[in-house]
Amino acid sequence: MAHLLHIDSSPRDERSQSRRFTREFVESWKQSHPADTITYRDVGRNPVPHITESWIAAAYTPPAQRTLDLQDAIHISDQLVDELLAADIYVIGVPMYNYSIPSMLKAYIDQIVRIGRTFEFDPENAENPYKPLVLGKKMFIITARGASGYAIGERYGALNYQDPYLRTVFGFIGITDITFVPIENDESGGTGLAESIANARTQIAQLVGR
Amino acid sequence: MAHLLHIDSSPRDERSQSRRFTREFVESWKQSHPADTITYRDVGRNPVPHITESWIAAAYTPPAQRTLDLQDAIHISDQLVDELLAADIYVIGVPMYNYSIPSMLKAYIDQIVRIGRTFEFDPENAENPYKPLVLGKKMFIITARGASGYAIGERYGALNYQDPYLRTVFGFIGITDITFVPIENDESGGTGLAESIANARTQIAQLVGR
Repeated sequence: MAHLLHIDSSPRDERSQSRRFTREFVESWKQSHPADTITYRDVGRNPVPHITESWIAAAYTPPAQRTLDLQDAIHISDQLVDELLAADIYVIGVPMYNYSIPSMLKAYIDQIVRIGRTFEFDPENAENPYKPLVLGKKMFIITARGASGYAIGERYGALNYQDPYLRTVFGFIGITDITFVPIENDESGGTGLAESIANARTQIAQLVGR
Repeated sequence: MAHLLHIDSSPRDERSQSRRFTREFVESWKQSHPADTITYRDVGRNPVPHITESWIAAAYTPPAQRTLDLQDAIHISDQLVDELLAADIYVIGVPMYNYSIPSMLKAYIDQIVRIGRTFEFDPENAENPYKPLVLGKKMFIITARGASGYAIGERYGALNYQDPYLRTVFGFIGITDITFVPIENDESGGTGLAESIANARTQIAQLVGR
């Protein structure tokens, strides 16, 4: 029995492809893993706060020395990190906005990359000062893009700061087992979009083991 | 006589290196260009909103057909785009957070990349559907990073989603004349930081023409 954290980051509701396919993924997962439990977090329509100067001060102050104000400054971050660590599996929906991720997902990432909680920093180890702490997890990311050609070596590959970035930053905290399910051509539509959706559905069926 | 838009994106006040050096840059610029005018925008400590579903609907509705609600949904975006277009020169301070830009700066970027205002989209032109509209501008970006080795080919070059991304997204709207001034080793400090600051000061002096 595993615990799954389902995250959406699109500001769109019914018109969001990433949201539609994280829902399909999770519905399908439930059927093939009926004992698994699920938590839902919608940072796209209910954004988490940006980090602040007090947030940084709090995160870099040892827990026992934090004043009430500092504790307050990272209270939401603590909850988000608890929620992240409690899950074994992540399913995240991420539209590409301006070649990167939506600002709401960056706000979430800036909240959960936490020294002492999701990574350790050892200044004595000059070669490799960072140690990831979020280990043994599995992540599935549904990406949505208006056009196609964003894979490595393709026409817009060098402009893609969406999935390569997600691999980098989640890898930094230890989440290295990441599978991407792309939905492409959302803006152009037509057969390009229909084919991409059909491929995504096939891939999702395989991933959830049905 | 030129108009300069000065933007900070760090949530930190006095402890921010990027903020400190955009200030030094702009002070120095004023002395060498006394007739220039300056607008200041602090998205780090006074973040602009994230975009929403209504924002997208409004941006993709022709201006004459926008309801009052849709006009309202992009009112702040319109102001930010006006402010951007009114400037000839940009000076932006950008710390690296989790290998990328702060969520507050992404929120700003998502507000100012606007169809029909900062870029055009022509679906008929399959080869090159996007046309940038922010032309003839000059941008200076002060980046701040905790460590060093983030230039192309260096140790962490492949993990850098900060300045390569800024070049991509500002280039998309037409701002291609971009000069970066890096401040490195802010976390490690010591001589590494001192050298980096000395180099940045030399570079700034040359850039402002003093």
